[in-house]
Amino acid sequence: MTTATIEAPAKKAPPVPRNGVDTPTLLATINAVGAQPELAKFQFRARNKWIKGTHSRTIMADFSGAGGEHGHVAETSADGDHPAVLCGADQAPTPAEWVLHALATCITAGIANIAAARGVTLTRVESKVTGDVDLRGILGLSDTVRNGYQHIGISFEIEGDAPPEKLREIVEQSRARSAVFDVITNGVPVSVEAKAGQ
Amino acid sequence: MTTATIEAPAKKAPPVPRNGVDTPTLLATINAVGAQPELAKFQFRARNKWIKGTHSRTIMADFSGAGGEHGHVAETSADGDHPAVLCGADQAPTPAEWVLHALATCITAGIANIAAARGVTLTRVESKVTGDVDLRGILGLSDTVRNGYQHIGISFEIEGDAPPEKLREIVEQSRARSAVFDVITNGVPVSVEAKAGQ
Repeated sequence: MTTATIEAPAKKAPPVPRNGVDTPTLLATINAVGAQPELAKFQFRARNKWIKGTHSRTIMADFSGAGGEHGHVAETSADGDHPAVLCGADQAPTPAEWVLHALATCITAGIANIAAARGVTLTRVESKVTGDVDLRGILGLSDTVRNGYQHIGISFEIEGDAPPEKLREIVEQSRARSAVFDVITNGVPVSVEAKAGQ
Repeated sequence: MTTATIEAPAKKAPPVPRNGVDTPTLLATINAVGAQPELAKFQFRARNKWIKGTHSRTIMADFSGAGGEHGHVAETSADGDHPAVLCGADQAPTPAEWVLHALATCITAGIANIAAARGVTLTRVESKVTGDVDLRGILGLSDTVRNGYQHIGISFEIEGDAPPEKLREIVEQSRARSAVFDVITNGVPVSVEAKAGQ
């Protein structure tokens, strides 16, 4: 060991791309938003059209944020329907299942970002989500049973080049900063408007 | 007007299929669940797998309810990703957009069912959903800005063979019995588990 290496303080390695995450750009983006908070204001959008029965179709195409308007690389079309056992045509997942999809994709995206920022290379992240509901609410059979889920559970299996405890901390940090987890657990005010014609 | 018609009480027309909704079966289902409340317990499920970066894929295939296990007519695969402006690969809508999709499909399905039960034939139902969010929350730049949406708005355009006021009442009743509206506005407890390995 030379004097030079002793004198030089241990430098933290600069972040490198990892897990398919462009870590340097991600951290630069966070710094840019920190310096100019108005860049953080986003509006996400969807437009839906009824098809038949309980079947409808949503288009997700554009959003605003980071000071401008943005189009997705490709528009996405997705349907919703009720299952046959509830007299639907089962042309698509139920709306309630789409909530579970939103939760899983949100926490999983965060896991990849946070692992990259912490220098952890992931090899597998899988999750199962369940939502329990008593349909007496939505069927109008009870005024005390709520309409929505009574409980949602999500269980992750995560593997990577870090000790289990560090991997679990990454999941926990992603949960703590998940937009969809916050929406589902804490609720959001929703305004509903209707314009009617004949 | 004859005596006979005066004496005969006005009978409510039996429900008929309408709007693509099998109204008689729907009402029979509601009655069956009312008589046997354990049929109302459902569990919806999704399983997700991380692909790369912030991109992951969900499969929605089966659920339980009405006293048994059910498979959807077809499995549905759907992805989630972050947009390029947030350093994602924009391979799919963001998780937050999927929440808007869930809300729109839920209230729209209810509108079709309720209109059918009330004898109203619909010709058009369209909606636009917006969700406003300040990303300083999820980017970890603020401890006071929430992670999720600050407000969601959904605006319907509805047309059918009923007066505007009656059409608006159908939207309002659907909102009042929407599972996803309840989840989003009132919140649901969510448990997160993680099993980690190397």
